[in-house]
Amino acid sequence: MDASIIGPISFDATATAPMYLQIAEHIAAKIRGRLLPAGTKLPPERQLAALFGVSRTTAINAYRQLEELGLVRTKVGSGTYVNEAPAEAGPQPVPWHQTMVPHLPSPLAGILRDLVSVDIAGDTISLGTGLPDPALYPTAAFTSLFERHFARLNNADLGHIPTEGYLPLRTLLAAGHSRSGIPATAANIAVVSGSMQGLYLLAKIFINPGDYVIVEAPTYLGALPIFRTSGARVLTLPAPGPLQLDLLEDYLVRYRPKLLYIMPTFQNPSGRVLPLAERRALLALAARHRLIIIEDDPYGDLHYDQQPPPPLKALDPYGGVVYLRTFSKALFPGLRVGWVVAPEPVIDRLAMEKQYIDLHSANLSQWLLSKFLGEGLLSGHVERLRAEYKKRRDIAAAALQRHCSSLSFAPPSGGFYFWCRLARSSSAGTRLLLHEAARQGVAFVPGEAFYPDSGGEQEFRLCFATNSEPVLQEGIKRLGKALSHLDKIAHADSRPLIHASQPII
Amino acid sequence: MDASIIGPISFDATATAPMYLQIAEHIAAKIRGRLLPAGTKLPPERQLAALFGVSRTTAINAYRQLEELGLVRTKVGSGTYVNEAPAEAGPQPVPWHQTMVPHLPSPLAGILRDLVSVDIAGDTISLGTGLPDPALYPTAAFTSLFERHFARLNNADLGHIPTEGYLPLRTLLAAGHSRSGIPATAANIAVVSGSMQGLYLLAKIFINPGDYVIVEAPTYLGALPIFRTSGARVLTLPAPGPLQLDLLEDYLVRYRPKLLYIMPTFQNPSGRVLPLAERRALLALAARHRLIIIEDDPYGDLHYDQQPPPPLKALDPYGGVVYLRTFSKALFPGLRVGWVVAPEPVIDRLAMEKQYIDLHSANLSQWLLSKFLGEGLLSGHVERLRAEYKKRRDIAAAALQRHCSSLSFAPPSGGFYFWCRLARSSSAGTRLLLHEAARQGVAFVPGEAFYPDSGGEQEFRLCFATNSEPVLQEGIKRLGKALSHLDKIAHADSRPLIHASQPII
Repeated sequence: MDASIIGPISFDATATAPMYLQIAEHIAAKIRGRLLPAGTKLPPERQLAALFGVSRTTAINAYRQLEELGLVRTKVGSGTYVNEAPAEAGPQPVPWHQTMVPHLPSPLAGILRDLVSVDIAGDTISLGTGLPDPALYPTAAFTSLFERHFARLNNADLGHIPTEGYLPLRTLLAAGHSRSGIPATAANIAVVSGSMQGLYLLAKIFINPGDYVIVEAPTYLGALPIFRTSGARVLTLPAPGPLQLDLLEDYLVRYRPKLLYIMPTFQNPSGRVLPLAERRALLALAARHRLIIIEDDPYGDLHYDQQPPPPLKALDPYGGVVYLRTFSKALFPGLRVGWVVAPEPVIDRLAMEKQYIDLHSANLSQWLLSKFLGEGLLSGHVERLRAEYKKRRDIAAAALQRHCSSLSFAPPSGGFYFWCRLARSSSAGTRLLLHEAARQGVAFVPGEAFYPDSGGEQEFRLCFATNSEPVLQEGIKRLGKALSHLDKIAHADSRPLIHASQPII
Repeated sequence: MDASIIGPISFDATATAPMYLQIAEHIAAKIRGRLLPAGTKLPPERQLAALFGVSRTTAINAYRQLEELGLVRTKVGSGTYVNEAPAEAGPQPVPWHQTMVPHLPSPLAGILRDLVSVDIAGDTISLGTGLPDPALYPTAAFTSLFERHFARLNNADLGHIPTEGYLPLRTLLAAGHSRSGIPATAANIAVVSGSMQGLYLLAKIFINPGDYVIVEAPTYLGALPIFRTSGARVLTLPAPGPLQLDLLEDYLVRYRPKLLYIMPTFQNPSGRVLPLAERRALLALAARHRLIIIEDDPYGDLHYDQQPPPPLKALDPYGGVVYLRTFSKALFPGLRVGWVVAPEPVIDRLAMEKQYIDLHSANLSQWLLSKFLGEGLLSGHVERLRAEYKKRRDIAAAALQRHCSSLSFAPPSGGFYFWCRLARSSSAGTRLLLHEAARQGVAFVPGEAFYPDSGGEQEFRLCFATNSEPVLQEGIKRLGKALSHLDKIAHADSRPLIHASQPII
C-alpha cells in the first residue's frame, strides 16, 4: 500500500503525549472515520518510523496501541491490517443539558447555592422554611376520619372527578366563604394542587409575554419565578409601611398593568396587615382603572391579636378580585390542596389549563378534607393553632430582644414570620450573616430572595411556627452568636489591610 | 336654564321602548356622563314635552323614571334638579374573557360540543372514556393498608417532600424496573401527578416553539393539546401496521425533530403492539440520528394473550429513551400518580419545572402506593385485572361480530380499546354515527379526536374495560342499532333529492 494514506506527517514534538500515542491517535482517527477502511494493510513498522521521523520502537509501540484499541491486528510474517469491524467505542451519551430548553436561573438559585456551600451542622435549626409544625398536624382527627369513612368510600370517588375539584369539597368551601362575606357557589371555586399551582395557572391565563404585573417588594418568593417565566414585566410596590397609592396610580396610568399580586393580610415575609381604609382605597383605585387583583391569603386565619380586616375579595365593589387560599399552613402541606375563588369565566378557563397539567388534584386529599370540613373540625383546630403560634410569636420576640438586640423588627400580629433588619447597615449584609449562622447551627432566608430585583441585602425572614418553643429559643440564641461574630468580623474588616507606610509592590 | 342642554331631540318613534323611557334614558346618559352636572335645573314638564314633541304625560313619566333611577329629584313648586351625587349604576362587570390570554380551541372541543349537543338518555352506556372499571379498584386492600398503617404515619411524611416524589415509593419503583430489565435508582425516577403531567413537563423542558415533534397518527388524544400549546410543529407516523422506518428516517434527515412520542405497547387507540424486531430497528435508527424518544406505556401490564416484547427503554442501546408510566389504569385514576424514568439530568430539570406547578404530588397517594407496592400487592391485583379484562375483550369481540358486522376491527391483545372502522366508507362518518349512537344510548370517541390534523373520519375508539359484561354487551347491541339506522339514512341520502325532469328555479 501507499504509505501516504497515513499522512500528513507533521507532529508536535513538544506536545505532552508520548509520540507513539500521538501517532496511534492520528491513525485511529482515520480508521474510525473510515478513511482507512477495514482490511487496509498499514505500512511496515520500519516504513512508519521513517514516515513520522521516529525510532522503530516508537512505531512498534504505536501499532501495539492500535492493537490494544482493537483497531488493527498483526498477522505474523504478513503485516498490520485495519480490523474488519473496528470495535466501536461505547455510544456517545446523550448531551441531555444541550437538548433541553434553556432554563432561566433565578437569583434565588444563587442564594441557595451559597447556602448549601456552607457546612451545615447536623443539628441545624431551620428558621427558614415557611412550614407549620408537623407536631401540630391534626393527624389523629384524620386517622379517625379514615377509620370511620374509608370503608364506605364510593369507588366513583376514586376515579376521575371534575378538573375544578371534588364537588362536596367545593360546596363546603363555597358555603364557608358565603358565611364570611364572600358570596360564592361551587361554580366559583377551583381546587388546585397548592396555592402555588393556583398562581401558576392564573399567570398562564392572564399574562401575555410583555404584560406588566405589579408585586409587592418584598413578596412571596414562590411568586417571582412564576411571573418571570410567564414573560411578565414586574413593577414593585413597597410592602411594609402604608400602601403607596400614588405610586400605584402612576403605574396604572403609565403602564396599564395586567394585574396586581398582593397579600393584604400578614404579608409574607413582612407580616404587614393592610388596614381597612387602605383596602377600600386600593379597591376604589382598582375599580377606577379596571385592575385585576390576585389576593393571596394563606395566613388570614392565623391571627394572634385582633382579627384582621375582611379580605379584599369581601370588600370588592366591582368584582375584579381573584382570591387564592391554601390548606398548607392551617393543616399540612402534603395535602397539596389550595383553592381559587373567582367569577365563573375565570374558573372555567383555569380548569381548561389545569386539565393539561394534572387533569385534577388527587382525590384522597380532597375526599379527606370534605369529611374534615363536613364534621366542622377546622375551626377548633385553627383555634388551637392560634393559641400555640401566639405563644411562639411572643417567645421569639422576647428571645430576639434578648439575644439579637442589634436587629430591628416588629412582632407580627399573625402569620408565621418575623421580618428582621440589621440595625446598622453593614457591608456584610444578611447573606454573609447566613454563612455565619449556618456555622452556628441555625438557618433563615436572606432578604434578597423576596425581591424581584435588588433589595433586601440588610433584611431576612425568620419563621417562628415550625419549631417547638425550646428549639425556637435555642435557634434565636445561635442567631445572636452569629450576629456578634459578624460584628467582630465587620470591626476587623474596618481596619485597613495595608498600612500606609508599607510599600505596595 | 337653557332647555337646549337636553337636546338633540331626534327620537325614533318606531323603536320598541316607550317614548318616556327613551327620553329618560337620553337624559340619564347626559347625567351619568356629567354633561348635566349635579344641581342643574331641568326644563319644566311642559317645556320638556314641547322639546321632544310628546304629550305632557310622557314628559311627566320620563321625569318619574329618572327619579326612580335616583338621578333627579323634584322639589314641589320649584322644579326638577339633577341629584347631587347621582346614584351610580352598578359597576360595569369585568369583561373576563377579554382579559385572558387567547385560548387555542382544540379540534376535540368541536367534537365534544357536537356530542353534548345531542340528547343523551340518562342510561347512556359510555364506551368512550379510557377508564378502568371502578368495581375492580383494590379498595378493600387500600382500606386495610390505611387501617394498619395510618396511625403509625410519620407526621414528616405529611409535610413537604422532594419534588421528585416520596423516596420510599421511588425506591420501590426503581427496584421493580431494575428487576424487569430497566436498570434504575430512585434518582432516575420522578413521580408526577398522572402521566399527562409527565408529558406536560417533558414538553416544557424539551420543546422550543417551532421544534418538530413526531407523533403516531392516531395517538393519545391528551398528548395533542400539550404539543400544540408548546409551539411544536407536529409530524405524524401512521400507527397501525408495520412501523414506517423509511418515513421516520426521512423526517429525521429532513427536519431534525426534537423527539418522537410513541406508545409501542397496546397503543391508544389502535391497540398495536410493535414487534421486537421493529423495536430494535427503531432504536438503531434513533441512536444513529440521536433522536429522543418519549415512550408512553400505560397499558404494558394489561396483556391478555402472550406477553408483549420488553419496552423500548429496556432495549435502548444509547440511553435516549424517556419512559412514562401511570397507576391510573392498573389501580385508579384518582391517585393522580404517574412516573417518569429517565437519566438524572432529565429528572433534575423536570423537578425544577414541577416545583412551580405543584411543588410535589400529593403525599397520601404516594404514601399509600408505597405500602401497596411494599407489601407486594400489585402483581396479584394486575393478574386479576388481566383475567377480567380478557373476558370482556372476548365478549366485546363476539358482540361486535354479531351486532356490528359492518365494522372492521382486530381484537387487541392488551390494553382497553377496540379501534373500529366503518367497513364501507360513507359520507356519514363516525361523527354522524356518534349522534345516532347517543340517541340509542351509547357513546364512543370518534376517530378524528386522535389525529393531530385530518384523518379518522371513518374510525372510532371503543373501550371494553369500564363496564361490566352485561352492560358492555348491551352497549354494543345499541351501537349495532345505530349502525343499521345510519345505513338506512345513507341509503335514503343516495336517492337524488330532485328529479332531473323537475325544473330548477
